[in-house]
Amino acid sequence: MGIQEMSDAECRTFLRRVQIGRLGCALDDQPYVVPINVVLEEDYLYSFATLGQKVEWMRKNPKVCVQVDEIAGPRWVSVIATGRYQELREPELTIERAHAHKLLNQKQRWWLNAVAQRQLKSGDELMETIFFRIRIESLSGLEGTESSS
Amino acid sequence: MGIQEMSDAECRTFLRRVQIGRLGCALDDQPYVVPINVVLEEDYLYSFATLGQKVEWMRKNPKVCVQVDEIAGPRWVSVIATGRYQELREPELTIERAHAHKLLNQKQRWWLNAVAQRQLKSGDELMETIFFRIRIESLSGLEGTESSS
Repeated sequence: MGIQEMSDAECRTFLRRVQIGRLGCALDDQPYVVPINVVLEEDYLYSFATLGQKVEWMRKNPKVCVQVDEIAGPRWVSVIATGRYQELREPELTIERAHAHKLLNQKQRWWLNAVAQRQLKSGDELMETIFFRIRIESLSGLEGTESSS
Repeated sequence: MGIQEMSDAECRTFLRRVQIGRLGCALDDQPYVVPINVVLEEDYLYSFATLGQKVEWMRKNPKVCVQVDEIAGPRWVSVIATGRYQELREPELTIERAHAHKLLNQKQRWWLNAVAQRQLKSGDELMETIFFRIRIESLSGLEGTESSS
């Protein structure tokens, strides 16, 4: 069948390469899933947002899940991380916030879109960007190749 | 910025076209996100799985979320549906189950992979496929075009 579980190291190599993941958060048993930009460093996935439903929910319930996949021709990979939301606020976490900014600045595309999206809704072009990271608590992945046999 | 909210009809047109979505479910405030095959018909998203964490969780908490996106060059679309899990069991829902099977059979790739994946884990090549549908309760979408200005 050509399907196998990925090692922790393989999951991390994959997470370092990709740009976009899907973040799952939940409140009162209702899950909510949105695309986010992700950057892996050590045991953290760094990302950003502007104030909205996902940030409001994660402040109330920091348990989250990030799923990342890639389907390229006959080969596919899917990695799932669960962890805890940590908001990089100033002034308590100014250094970590600046570090997140630097890491994420290397991946411009979704950055611009996500910020623009929130500005569209709020009409506030100066809306503050919220940086956060997810401390990974579990990590697993599967990779497979299609087979007709 | 070139970002706009999609109408209900535009969201549905997009969902009819795509093959894969990300399903979010939650148990005890812990969200879990996995890729699934999706087929839209009327107010339902049809899919399938073999017994595992997501089915076990959705049986306990039927509140779910399905997120679907497409990033093709400078254009991107993201649609989010929330709704309720309904398992298409026999004998109560035999007709609906057969209908789901027919709809999903048109999209073979993930079907085969997902079933193979579970068989790999269980060692049971006869493991039963579970069909389910999600009754959509809310539907929203955004589409955008990158802009450097």
